[in-house]
Amino acid sequence: MTGDGSLESYIRSVPDFPKPGIVFRDITPLLASAQGLDTSLTALTELTRDLRPDIVIGAEARGFLFGPALAHKLGAGFALARKPGSLPHRTIRHEYSLEYGTSVLELHEDAIGAGARVLVHDDLLATGGTARALCSLVEQLGGEVVGCAFLIELAFLPGRAALAPHDVHALIRYDEE
Amino acid sequence: MTGDGSLESYIRSVPDFPKPGIVFRDITPLLASAQGLDTSLTALTELTRDLRPDIVIGAEARGFLFGPALAHKLGAGFALARKPGSLPHRTIRHEYSLEYGTSVLELHEDAIGAGARVLVHDDLLATGGTARALCSLVEQLGGEVVGCAFLIELAFLPGRAALAPHDVHALIRYDEE
Repeated sequence: MTGDGSLESYIRSVPDFPKPGIVFRDITPLLASAQGLDTSLTALTELTRDLRPDIVIGAEARGFLFGPALAHKLGAGFALARKPGSLPHRTIRHEYSLEYGTSVLELHEDAIGAGARVLVHDDLLATGGTARALCSLVEQLGGEVVGCAFLIELAFLPGRAALAPHDVHALIRYDEE
Repeated sequence: MTGDGSLESYIRSVPDFPKPGIVFRDITPLLASAQGLDTSLTALTELTRDLRPDIVIGAEARGFLFGPALAHKLGAGFALARKPGSLPHRTIRHEYSLEYGTSVLELHEDAIGAGARVLVHDDLLATGGTARALCSLVEQLGGEVVGCAFLIELAFLPGRAALAPHDVHALIRYDEE
């Protein structure tokens, strides 16, 4: 499964998941490998260190996989965006469009201080909807988005453009489905 | 919010969430603090290092917050248990009872090799349902559960007994609601 030891070799491509025509990029083999986890976390840290974030923000559930570990390696804290009703304290919310219907993310209103430097993170950048929602939540609280960092970018989708003017950083790039 | 700098001082207690009579132990202030995140991860690592796990396993969503970071600090990999339909490859499943109704967790069938030493992790131990489900998934794949590690233990609930004979390790213990 680990192939040539490159990061890409730890990613399993699953055709027709979650629906026909989509190739799902499965990061579970990378996480399950101590070497894959170390290599990817180290590379993600190097890619984002110069952004000097105070906080990394990620959304449940897959944004939690690398977000806190990356925050720790950067000497930052981690802010959790969750689905409605999961956070117990006072929250702000952002509703955004998906291919079909809408989705909502909530964030504790004290999760990010005014002026904080915030790195937006998710495991995968596709059309950018989740990451844009995270940027909006950060800005509602007066934080400054210093960049967006992903493990994987699906570069044949318009996610990078959707996140402009924020800089996008990604470890692994797929140019076609 | 950070009080005296102890780990407990980073936990926010929210009365009557998610329902009347329950005091919710909110770890978001701990995660949001670089110091709180570092102190808790370091302590969790020290608590479990001698177990020498090959793999840490955690369930979505809150088991993903510390699981991969802990795995990385222990030199292990991380296995993800998810809700039905979220994992793209061949899975095994375990159904378990909750206070009302049942829940199901799935795990990729190649997530854990036979004989692997596995540390079961979640952020909080209450009645032990989720952690027991994780133990069952590990054992279905021939793995050896070497212990269960939590950030928080609600010691007035029977979670520790429910996990016997597995050893339970927890950083923060609450003896009453």
